[in-house]
Amino acid sequence: MISYPIKKNTAQKTVNYANLGMTLESDIDVTNRYYLDEGIAVIHKKPTPIQVVSVSYPARNKAKITEAYYKVPSTTDFNGIFEGRYIDFDAKETTLQTSMPLKNIHPHQVDHLKAVNKSGGIAFLIVHFKKLQTYYLLPASVLFRYWDNRHDPESGRKSIPLSAFQKEAYPIPFSFQPRLDYLSIVKTYLMSK
Amino acid sequence: MISYPIKKNTAQKTVNYANLGMTLESDIDVTNRYYLDEGIAVIHKKPTPIQVVSVSYPARNKAKITEAYYKVPSTTDFNGIFEGRYIDFDAKETTLQTSMPLKNIHPHQVDHLKAVNKSGGIAFLIVHFKKLQTYYLLPASVLFRYWDNRHDPESGRKSIPLSAFQKEAYPIPFSFQPRLDYLSIVKTYLMSK
Repeated sequence: MISYPIKKNTAQKTVNYANLGMTLESDIDVTNRYYLDEGIAVIHKKPTPIQVVSVSYPARNKAKITEAYYKVPSTTDFNGIFEGRYIDFDAKETTLQTSMPLKNIHPHQVDHLKAVNKSGGIAFLIVHFKKLQTYYLLPASVLFRYWDNRHDPESGRKSIPLSAFQKEAYPIPFSFQPRLDYLSIVKTYLMSK
Repeated sequence: MISYPIKKNTAQKTVNYANLGMTLESDIDVTNRYYLDEGIAVIHKKPTPIQVVSVSYPARNKAKITEAYYKVPSTTDFNGIFEGRYIDFDAKETTLQTSMPLKNIHPHQVDHLKAVNKSGGIAFLIVHFKKLQTYYLLPASVLFRYWDNRHDPESGRKSIPLSAFQKEAYPIPFSFQPRLDYLSIVKTYLMSK
């Protein structure tokens, strides 16, 4: 018998950091499932990279991993194909109301998005401002500008301000189906070239 | 201190099944690294999907996974972009000398390759016949024909014969750099459409 941890009635201010970001991710997963079922696009979330250290074999053909660690991802979480074009993006959430911190993004992810962009793929971020309840599709080119400039003593910033999202990103409507129709934005605004 | 298993001097016929497939995978990883460094293509192996059951926190900010299991992959292992085209494939090894068993392939992977193919992506398998020391790029269309026909009482087979590889697949030369230059074959034979 497996004994699951018992849920305690804790104070409301307890935040489960393990689930931070799960909602956006699952909203995108539901959207991608819809795209796949409707034959619109084939876009999947990559599995979380895990470094396996020890494996035991309690039963034949059943490997049980007994020691492993999360690894820093070397690419983004989502990629696939839409109308013949390669699509690549990551999903980020912030509780801030006026900017998205650049530390939410790993340097490897920026390098990856740059390589994708250079190869003719469509690269972007989906950013959820949780407290504002708004979702933006931020073209990678805007991210690159803030990223490359972040150490500039004059104009460098550690975050992308909300005003940049309002000017240069595209709001993604949240609806029943598809949940977060980011590909309609990709099609309208990013697939001209 | 970590105590690693001690290597014993065992008879030569001992086969380490845990490493089966690791060589092909690492040869493809080395090739992809070359493609990335040279700006030729952005193709990565997806992480192995793992179902995490328990996590402990022996130290702050250091999550240790203490119980987890390997999951059946829902897509293929490799995807990315090459000259603006979406590329998607899986790598398979066989020790057989006359055919590749279809049971090496998960039904989900075939469904995924079909969806990719339909969306205009370039889908294939890289198959290593270990005893023949040959590598083939098998276009997904050939796989689909054998797969869809596998239960046919007359002509159905549980494997793709080597003769089909010789007729309808493309041998991939093994060299120093790039190790397995499968994209030259993709470019010459699969990118006409």
